[in-house]
Amino acid sequence: MPSPVINFADKLSLFSDLWSPRIIAQMNDYHFKLAKIQGEFVWHSHPETDEVFIIISGSMEIHLRDGVIQLGEGEMYVVPKGIEHKPIAGQECHILLIEPAGTLNTGDAGGDMTVQEVAWI
Amino acid sequence: MPSPVINFADKLSLFSDLWSPRIIAQMNDYHFKLAKIQGEFVWHSHPETDEVFIIISGSMEIHLRDGVIQLGEGEMYVVPKGIEHKPIAGQECHILLIEPAGTLNTGDAGGDMTVQEVAWI
Repeated sequence: MPSPVINFADKLSLFSDLWSPRIIAQMNDYHFKLAKIQGEFVWHSHPETDEVFIIISGSMEIHLRDGVIQLGEGEMYVVPKGIEHKPIAGQECHILLIEPAGTLNTGDAGGDMTVQEVAWI
Repeated sequence: MPSPVINFADKLSLFSDLWSPRIIAQMNDYHFKLAKIQGEFVWHSHPETDEVFIIISGSMEIHLRDGVIQLGEGEMYVVPKGIEHKPIAGQECHILLIEPAGTLNTGDAGGDMTVQEVAWI
């Protein structure tokens, strides 16, 4: 089992691959996941759940069909369930995702970037 | 309605009272709350839910019946449901709490520090 105190920097030092979230904590039936992102992800939505992005370091954009959300360190955003979105980061950005356990990173879109089994660190 | 981008520092500038969380976001039926704490809170537990603490700035302790959890900036901790805990901060500390909407800050303990109606900011 992981240490009960979860240090984001320590956890982020344990992996380097992009667009591949790692689970760091569970609260009831929700998972907290850290991810390193750079470049463009795929358009997708999560029909069953809202999804929270918290920026740990760097900056990113969440493209929506009707606009672009700009996010920097110390900011968060809730993507409402069912809303199509496409994360983009020009430089490497580290984020904390919060969503129900089992939520796929690519939502309803599938494809090569889908992580079927998200590892705990 | 609040801006869709939630900046922790901006939100923290909107209030100064201690031990009085403010709601800044909702994800499904969960609330994200910012709080400023200093001194000792009351022993309590939440029989129905886990509770997440994320430290935005400063440091704090979560006393448990069998130990003390030390938390600093960039760290998080999940208090399991039903576990008695008592938050303490020597200096002012700013935290993000995540728990189901309607969860009382004093849990099963009640008392003067209970905030019955948590405001959105």
